[in-house]
Amino acid sequence: MTDRLNLAVIGVGRMGSVHVRNLIQRLPQANVVALCDIRLDVAQQMAGELGIREVVSDYRRLLADARVEAVLIAASTDVHAEMVAEAARAGKHIFCEKPLALDLPSIDAALAAVAAAGVKLQVGFNRRFDPSFQRVREIVASGAIGRPCILRIASRDPEPPSVAYARASGGMFLDMTIHDFDMARFMVGEVEEVYALGSVLVAPWLAEAGDVDTDVVTLRFANGALGVIDNSRQAVYGYDQRLEVFCSAGVAQADNQAVDTVVRGDASGMHAALPPRFFMQRYPETYVNELREFIDCVLHDKEPPVTGRDGRISVVMGYAAWKSWRENRPVKLTEI
Amino acid sequence: MTDRLNLAVIGVGRMGSVHVRNLIQRLPQANVVALCDIRLDVAQQMAGELGIREVVSDYRRLLADARVEAVLIAASTDVHAEMVAEAARAGKHIFCEKPLALDLPSIDAALAAVAAAGVKLQVGFNRRFDPSFQRVREIVASGAIGRPCILRIASRDPEPPSVAYARASGGMFLDMTIHDFDMARFMVGEVEEVYALGSVLVAPWLAEAGDVDTDVVTLRFANGALGVIDNSRQAVYGYDQRLEVFCSAGVAQADNQAVDTVVRGDASGMHAALPPRFFMQRYPETYVNELREFIDCVLHDKEPPVTGRDGRISVVMGYAAWKSWRENRPVKLTEI
Amino acid sequence: MTDRLNLAVIGVGRMGSVHVRNLIQRLPQANVVALCDIRLDVAQQMAGELGIREVVSDYRRLLADARVEAVLIAASTDVHAEMVAEAARAGKHIFCEKPLALDLPSIDAALAAVAAAGVKLQVGFNRRFDPSFQRVREIVASGAIGRPCILRIASRDPEPPSVAYARASGGMFLDMTIHDFDMARFMVGEVEEVYALGSVLVAPWLAEAGDVDTDVVTLRFANGALGVIDNSRQAVYGYDQRLEVFCSAGVAQADNQAVDTVVRGDASGMHAALPPRFFMQRYPETYVNELREFIDCVLHDKEPPVTGRDGRISVVMGYAAWKSWRENRPVKLTEI
Amino acid sequence: MTDRLNLAVIGVGRMGSVHVRNLIQRLPQANVVALCDIRLDVAQQMAGELGIREVVSDYRRLLADARVEAVLIAASTDVHAEMVAEAARAGKHIFCEKPLALDLPSIDAALAAVAAAGVKLQVGFNRRFDPSFQRVREIVASGAIGRPCILRIASRDPEPPSVAYARASGGMFLDMTIHDFDMARFMVGEVEEVYALGSVLVAPWLAEAGDVDTDVVTLRFANGALGVIDNSRQAVYGYDQRLEVFCSAGVAQADNQAVDTVVRGDASGMHAALPPRFFMQRYPETYVNELREFIDCVLHDKEPPVTGRDGRISVVMGYAAWKSWRENRPVKLTEI
Repeated sequence: MTDRLNLAVIGVGRMGSVHVRNLIQRLPQANVVALCDIRLDVAQQMAGELGIREVVSDYRRLLADARVEAVLIAASTDVHAEMVAEAARAGKHIFCEKPLALDLPSIDAALAAVAAAGVKLQVGFNRRFDPSFQRVREIVASGAIGRPCILRIASRDPEPPSVAYARASGGMFLDMTIHDFDMARFMVGEVEEVYALGSVLVAPWLAEAGDVDTDVVTLRFANGALGVIDNSRQAVYGYDQRLEVFCSAGVAQADNQAVDTVVRGDASGMHAALPPRFFMQRYPETYVNELREFIDCVLHDKEPPVTGRDGRISVVMGYAAWKSWRENRPVKLTEI
Repeated sequence: MTDRLNLAVIGVGRMGSVHVRNLIQRLPQANVVALCDIRLDVAQQMAGELGIREVVSDYRRLLADARVEAVLIAASTDVHAEMVAEAARAGKHIFCEKPLALDLPSIDAALAAVAAAGVKLQVGFNRRFDPSFQRVREIVASGAIGRPCILRIASRDPEPPSVAYARASGGMFLDMTIHDFDMARFMVGEVEEVYALGSVLVAPWLAEAGDVDTDVVTLRFANGALGVIDNSRQAVYGYDQRLEVFCSAGVAQADNQAVDTVVRGDASGMHAALPPRFFMQRYPETYVNELREFIDCVLHDKEPPVTGRDGRISVVMGYAAWKSWRENRPVKLTEI
Repeated sequence: MTDRLNLAVIGVGRMGSVHVRNLIQRLPQANVVALCDIRLDVAQQMAGELGIREVVSDYRRLLADARVEAVLIAASTDVHAEMVAEAARAGKHIFCEKPLALDLPSIDAALAAVAAAGVKLQVGFNRRFDPSFQRVREIVASGAIGRPCILRIASRDPEPPSVAYARASGGMFLDMTIHDFDMARFMVGEVEEVYALGSVLVAPWLAEAGDVDTDVVTLRFANGALGVIDNSRQAVYGYDQRLEVFCSAGVAQADNQAVDTVVRGDASGMHAALPPRFFMQRYPETYVNELREFIDCVLHDKEPPVTGRDGRISVVMGYAAWKSWRENRPVKLTEI
Repeated sequence: MTDRLNLAVIGVGRMGSVHVRNLIQRLPQANVVALCDIRLDVAQQMAGELGIREVVSDYRRLLADARVEAVLIAASTDVHAEMVAEAARAGKHIFCEKPLALDLPSIDAALAAVAAAGVKLQVGFNRRFDPSFQRVREIVASGAIGRPCILRIASRDPEPPSVAYARASGGMFLDMTIHDFDMARFMVGEVEEVYALGSVLVAPWLAEAGDVDTDVVTLRFANGALGVIDNSRQAVYGYDQRLEVFCSAGVAQADNQAVDTVVRGDASGMHAALPPRFFMQRYPETYVNELREFIDCVLHDKEPPVTGRDGRISVVMGYAAWKSWRENRPVKLTEI
């Protein structure tokens, strides 16, 4: 193993292009040897700008390339699991965007291939790499403020998606809450049961897709702690991402960070700035940090910080939430 | 009706003595004509200090006194309902501490007596009179930030009670969450269904009493909004009382107020003061404000801001929460 | 000496009436035996309301009354010094509102009488008794954050006064900054030299009175620390009272406290409440606390926390600031 | 003029290397054609890493290169002015780190050369490009909160420099306060007079260099507003950079931003994170923004946002502050 990791990136859409730039500009241990996208021209343009030599439209060519040690999969969700499985069989280490898939059989097949091949797989739950959330976890995990009792997460998007997006995404609990499910496990540990309330209050068109735009989901943790996540598709004041872990000897809270620190006072009140509207602005460092750790795990043969199992459980939780919502009762993860 | 209200106070323990002092020192429209307590010496000492002429140990003597226009009931919970009913039959207006009773038949009998007599009854849900919570409600009720979507209440006591207290109080949902149930209705409106999670995590002795010390309770409102309350009996950093109403066009949040505004910065961090530990320090003005409004309602024949029906519903919600907890399923208020 | 202090209050205008109510309602160790005001009817009405037996229009009658152990002087500034001197000669302990006088000879005569009589004198610099400022001082005085290096005070009134008020008050530095001069000494210690900048920027009518409405005053402390006070007569967002002591190993800051803790977020920003506009709302407890300490000092023969010397120095600093402003140069207090 | 600007960077030390990376990674309109450093190996290594073709040790070779349209001067202060003058004479546009020089004749000669050549010159006062400070300025400049009355700047470094650094830097007022002088002008306008207090309180070794480590400097603005800057070389809680513009109809404040948004509450208080310790972390975007604007000014023939005149005045203010400090009197800028 060299001291740089030869990577190919599959899918250079919104997330993929962020990753490519981070790899090249911020992560000297990464060597991007090729890009792949079914829209070959898009990939070619990016490669030209960034000085990447090889561009392909069929990812299997990358898997056949002996120089490629690892692949970063940022293609559309429906092909994640198949790509993971094939990459594993080709002996490539894998970083895959979340979710691994929207159905458990595909995930299980992909994880089996990864296990059989003994390659590394990291799933892109980037929020675990946010400095504030990491600090909260450190405080909680240190035991300095006692045992976790109550977890509260508020996670709200600025604007609702289209029906088409909602349909393809698996809906609220599998598209949006899935991040919070992962965060909940990151903060407090395994969850045994969920109960989900959901309504359509702000984006009536989502009702057509059988989706909701507002939810409150409770969590019963294996260690006895209780949790609650609330989500909305429409926080007009910006991307709202806060959490709190209330413990037996204290509390740790992570608040939003506004786009600037300015307060304007006048006769009508004290006015402060809003949080950013876009997730890239909210979480810029997380995308760098997660890849830095992935590269480090591959180069130094460590366990990735977000495993395939983590990727699977969050999907299980999403299904449990949907089942809970449909049946209006708490649902154990073991029911899924 | 004169322009001052002749009041007698029944029960001069912790809450009663606060009320007596507020009536005398802060509310010029009140005229405290008598105190009553089964511990006659306690009442006599307070009356002496404050220049109140009459002291009795049997509240029925006050009800027979024609000068007394209204009674403030701050005796122990188990006699509230009976006192309310008798006071109503004696034609007295009534301010009664919460809860009206721990059983619904007693409450119903008391409310029937009140209705029959046509007297005013106000229940002591003091938090409705907190300036910050009132401001949140004003903002929400104005419609300026759209329709309510998600209500979040964090309500945590600094220290757990004894087993004896827990047993007599009706337990967490009827003793502590009851305030938050009332607040939820004050902020967002009627609730149709609750689901309650509860654990014993910090005060193992409460398990003996069949009580919990930590809970998360979700609320389904009639208007489609969703809510969640979390409670703990042990917030080591003080009495934690926060809420947030997330709406379709904005959000309104009420935070804690620390005991001072000082921030100390040193090499280890920026350190701020804690919220007060005692509810009297947290809510001092609410006790004055609720009585001011009660007196105003009696003197000017208005509907009290917290009615007997409000007092009843909060108890129904407490029972629904206990039933939900025992059966681990959402419970409609109509089931109680 | 009994365990309650027999007090008479001279002057029941705005400040005097606050003191009378606090003495009666909040300070059980005080016994208000008489009120005095040249507007006898005003004093009589208040006495009637509060159950005070004796009312006089000539304060000398109080000084001749053997029952009176202490006087609280809240009459107009121009008679403070004479009243202090006479009260001292009559053997009464004295609480006097600030300033002692607007000229030093009067102050010196009064202080000499106090010294000769051996009575207690406390001056009404109430801000020293604000819990937040006291906490800052404790932190600084403890040495926990090192030695003081820079003191910053922002002290801004909500609305400018009339010309008449400005003329009678001694002007900005003697009327308004005087509080901050005292606070500076309370926080950091003795001041050797001041330099004052002042402008008329918001209330042009004050120029007629030779006054300013905006100032920045620097302080050179005897211990080497540096300080700066800024004042304005017009903070449209409310009564702005903040300070910060920057030390060699940390910092202690006291911020404003808003009238409520509510934050409203909408598409235009996060909006919080303003600080109160009136000094009574900002500093309510200070008026109780300063009298509690005064009574305690008299009853237990202790040094008052704000002495006649403190009262004198703040006036010296006011004169030094005016001199500095006129001559546009730093002025040593020894020049006054 | 092409749509990309061909730049050469002179000096690739701490600041220079930041600029080179920003030009290459963040500013697509920049084309870095060459690096120059008297330490040729340092420049060569950086050029290798970043794919820059040409490296020289003598900047005059760059000035003779027709491809080079603009130079970025980040060499040591003592050669700034000479390089500016020569670059101007060679017809190159110039971005120069602050200060232009530590003596006015050198600055004047350089500015004369720039004027004669008609090239663009921008000085590196990066803080003007901080989003929060820009927002404050926008608010103030809009007139929405009235006219500026009081400017307050707190600007404190985390750790004191060595004697050697202090000696070479021109001392506190020319090295550190110079940034705040520029900020003051950026916010409120031209300054007529300064008064400087300075002490050695935390870094006794600076006394040897005739320097101070703590200062308070007042400003008299031409428009009547008043200002105050305070500086310290040792803020143990981090790099402290705050300012406030108090106006006749409101206030605009920019606070520090902590390294994370976490608050930990326990029985001892609520504990928040510190601001970053390093200026690169505090102001990362400013270095990108200032170059983006410089490039834009050259490409589109606009006036640079920080001119040679701005660079000169801040040095004049530094000299005025030193003179004021030595003579303990206010000093007009016209005296320098």
